[in-house]
Amino acid sequence: MTAELICVGTELLLGNTINTNAAFLAEQCAALGLSCYYQTVVGDNRERMRETIERGLERADVLILTGGLGPTGDDLTKEMAAEVLGQELVLHEPSRRRLEAFFVSRGMEITENNWKQAYAPEEAVVVDNDNGTAPGLILKKDGKHILLLPGPPGELIPMFTEKMAPYLQGLQEAVIFSRTVKLCGIGESKVETEILDLIRKQENPTVAPYAKVGEVHLRVTAKAACREEAMEKIEPVLEELKARFGKRIYTTDPAVTLEQAVVEELKEKGYRIAVAESCTGGLLAGRLTEVAGVSEVFETGLITYSNETKKRLLQVSEETLNQKGAVSEETALQMAEGLEKLTGARVCVAVTGIAGPGGGTGEKPVGLVYLACRVNGKTTVKECRFTGNRRKIRESSVAAALGLIRSCIG
Amino acid sequence: MTAELICVGTELLLGNTINTNAAFLAEQCAALGLSCYYQTVVGDNRERMRETIERGLERADVLILTGGLGPTGDDLTKEMAAEVLGQELVLHEPSRRRLEAFFVSRGMEITENNWKQAYAPEEAVVVDNDNGTAPGLILKKDGKHILLLPGPPGELIPMFTEKMAPYLQGLQEAVIFSRTVKLCGIGESKVETEILDLIRKQENPTVAPYAKVGEVHLRVTAKAACREEAMEKIEPVLEELKARFGKRIYTTDPAVTLEQAVVEELKEKGYRIAVAESCTGGLLAGRLTEVAGVSEVFETGLITYSNETKKRLLQVSEETLNQKGAVSEETALQMAEGLEKLTGARVCVAVTGIAGPGGGTGEKPVGLVYLACRVNGKTTVKECRFTGNRRKIRESSVAAALGLIRSCIG
Repeated sequence: MTAELICVGTELLLGNTINTNAAFLAEQCAALGLSCYYQTVVGDNRERMRETIERGLERADVLILTGGLGPTGDDLTKEMAAEVLGQELVLHEPSRRRLEAFFVSRGMEITENNWKQAYAPEEAVVVDNDNGTAPGLILKKDGKHILLLPGPPGELIPMFTEKMAPYLQGLQEAVIFSRTVKLCGIGESKVETEILDLIRKQENPTVAPYAKVGEVHLRVTAKAACREEAMEKIEPVLEELKARFGKRIYTTDPAVTLEQAVVEELKEKGYRIAVAESCTGGLLAGRLTEVAGVSEVFETGLITYSNETKKRLLQVSEETLNQKGAVSEETALQMAEGLEKLTGARVCVAVTGIAGPGGGTGEKPVGLVYLACRVNGKTTVKECRFTGNRRKIRESSVAAALGLIRSCIG
Repeated sequence: MTAELICVGTELLLGNTINTNAAFLAEQCAALGLSCYYQTVVGDNRERMRETIERGLERADVLILTGGLGPTGDDLTKEMAAEVLGQELVLHEPSRRRLEAFFVSRGMEITENNWKQAYAPEEAVVVDNDNGTAPGLILKKDGKHILLLPGPPGELIPMFTEKMAPYLQGLQEAVIFSRTVKLCGIGESKVETEILDLIRKQENPTVAPYAKVGEVHLRVTAKAACREEAMEKIEPVLEELKARFGKRIYTTDPAVTLEQAVVEELKEKGYRIAVAESCTGGLLAGRLTEVAGVSEVFETGLITYSNETKKRLLQVSEETLNQKGAVSEETALQMAEGLEKLTGARVCVAVTGIAGPGGGTGEKPVGLVYLACRVNGKTTVKECRFTGNRRKIRESSVAAALGLIRSCIG
C-alpha cells in the first residue's frame, strides 16, 4: 500500500515553520508498512489544493493531509477534499456539542467562524480531537482513503497515534508491526557492521538503523496475519539484538528517551545525580531536567565555564589547570571529585571540552571533550573526539555523557 | 517570479531527517521576492524524479533542487536534471582538480565513485562547494532556471547565501531587498496591533511579522530598481518601527540571535553574568553558552532544582520556601541575591517556575514562572504565565529571561 503526504499551509511555503509533521508522519507510515513516494507542501489556495489532492489520489492508496482545518477563511482543506470527492458539508451534531463544551469549560465566548469546525463531509468518519477544536476526518472514495489531520503537532501527533494509525493498520491485509531497539554508546557504522548479516538476510522481519545524535535506533518490522504472529517473528530478532548489543540497548520502548532511561535507572538505584559542565554549558542538566519528575534524583548542576569557577567551586587545582589544561582527563576527574565534595551526590558527572569554533590547537583540536563520571567513589573518564559545528559538538557531548552515566551506574 | 522546491532524498520520505532545508530555502525565496507555491519531496528514483522536475518546470520559473548530488549510485539529481534538459554530462576539469585537492589535503584516497562529482551537464554553470565535495549547478532552459544544491545544510546554506541568492537576485528586473527587525519582550498579537496601520496601508515596502518562541521578527521588504532605491524605501519604515518599539528591538541584523545580542551588551558594559535556574534546569545557561566567546562574560551557572540546593548554595531562607513556596517572587529574589553573594557577578539572574506536567495548583498553575534579574545591587522580578507543554514552557522561560536581562542592563 502506498501513502502520500500533503501538508497545507502558507507558513510552510514562507519558511516560517519547519515541517516536523512531515517527518513524524513519514516515520509512522514507514513503521506501518506504507510506502511513501511523495510529500507535497501547498498553500491555502483552492486551485492548487484541488490539483494536489487529485494528483495524490491518482498516485497513492492513502492520502494524509495536514493543516487547514481551523476556523478561519484561509482554512480550506476540508472544503477542498469534500469538493474533490463530490460530497456536501453537513453539520456534525456531536462535533457541535464538543465545540460548545470546549469553549464553555474555558469560559470563552464562541465566535461565529468557529462553528465551521463542526461541519464535515456527509460520508466522513469524524475523529475527535482531544487537544484542540478542529476534529480530524477520514474519507473514502473508490478504495482510496483520505485522512485529514489538524496542523498543530500537539493535536496531530496524539490523534494520529491513537486513532489514525489503528485505522491504517486495519486497512492492510497483513498486520505490520514494529519494535524499536534504542542504543547509545556505539556509532551507527559499528552497529551496521555488527548486524550486517541480519540486514543482508532480512526479508520478514526487516531491520533498519536510524542514526540520531549519540544514539542509534534499530527498527525491527514484521508483516503477518495478526499482531501475535508479527510479534512471534520479531521476538527472535529482538533476542538476537539483545544478545549482540547487551547493555548498549537502553530501551525497547519507542516513547522512552535516553534521558528518561537514565533518570529511571537513577530512581531504581536510589542514586541522586549532580553535574558540572564546562563546554556543554548547562545542556546536560537541561536534558536531564526535560524529564518530568526528575527532582527526585537531580541534586545540583554547576556550569563552571571559567577556570576561576572550576577552582573555587570544584577545587580543581591550579597546578592541574596550568600543566594539563582545562580540557584534560585530570581536570575532568577533579571536577567530578570536587562536585562530590560539594554536593554529596552519589553520581557526579563532569564535562570539559572545546566546542569551538575557536580555542582548538594541533594537540587539542575543536571537538576534543573529556567526560568523567564518579559513582560511589570510583571515577571513569572518557575521551571523545567529535566533529561538526559548536552546536553539534555540544549535543554529541551531552548524548555521550548520558551514555557514560548509564554504563557507570548499570 | 515563481519558484518551486524539490527536495530529493529517501531519508526525508522515511522521516529519518526533518526537512530544515525546505524551511531555510522557502524563507530565503520569500526574502528574494520569489513566490513559492509548492514544495515536493521525492525519493532517489529516476521515474518519479523526472516526473517531478518536468511538472516543476511547467509550473515555476525557478526550480531549486536539493540533495542527491553525492558520489553514490543513489545520487541521481544531476543525471535526471540533465536528462530532462537534454544535456550530456561532461567532465568539468576545475571540479576534478578541486576534488583531487580536497582529498589530497586530507590525506585521503579517492574512491572511484567520487569522480562522478566532477561531471556536469554540458551547459551548466558549476558552483564551487567550499564545504564539501559535490559542487552546485545552475541550469537554464527556455527562460527557466534550475538550481541544484547539495543536501547537507552545512554545504547548502553557505552555497545558497553566497552564490545562488545573488544569482536569483540578478534574474529579477526589480531588486527585492529586505531588512529584519527582531523584537523580544512583546507578544506577536501586541506587535501586530501596534503596526496594524502599517500592515494595512502597505504595498511597497511590505511588513510581515514572524512569531518565534519569546520573540517576534518583522521583515520589511521593498521592491525597487536598485538596492539603494530599495533601502531608501525601507529606511523610513525601519525608523518608524524603531520609534514605536524602541528598546524592545534587539537587533536589525538577520544573523544575530537574542543570546548573541545579550552577550554583546554584557561585553560592551563589561559585566559578567551568573544564572541560577530551577525549572529551566540549565537551558538558560545552555543558550547563553551557545555564543562562541561567551567565556569573557559568563561567570557561573547553578541549577538549583531542589529546595535543599536553593538553601545551601543560594541561601534562600527556609521561611520563604515554607511560607511563599519555591515558585514565588520572594524565592526568585533571594536566589538572585544569593547568587550575587556566591559569585560576585554584576548581573545575577534567577528562574523558578512550574514547567509541569505535574506540580500545578489552582493558585500556582503549570506555566507560572518567576524571573529575577539583579544588576548592580538592584533586583527586578517578573511574573510570567506561559502555556504549552513542559518543553514549550521551559523555552518560553529562557526567552523571557534573556529579554529581562536586556531590559535590566540596558
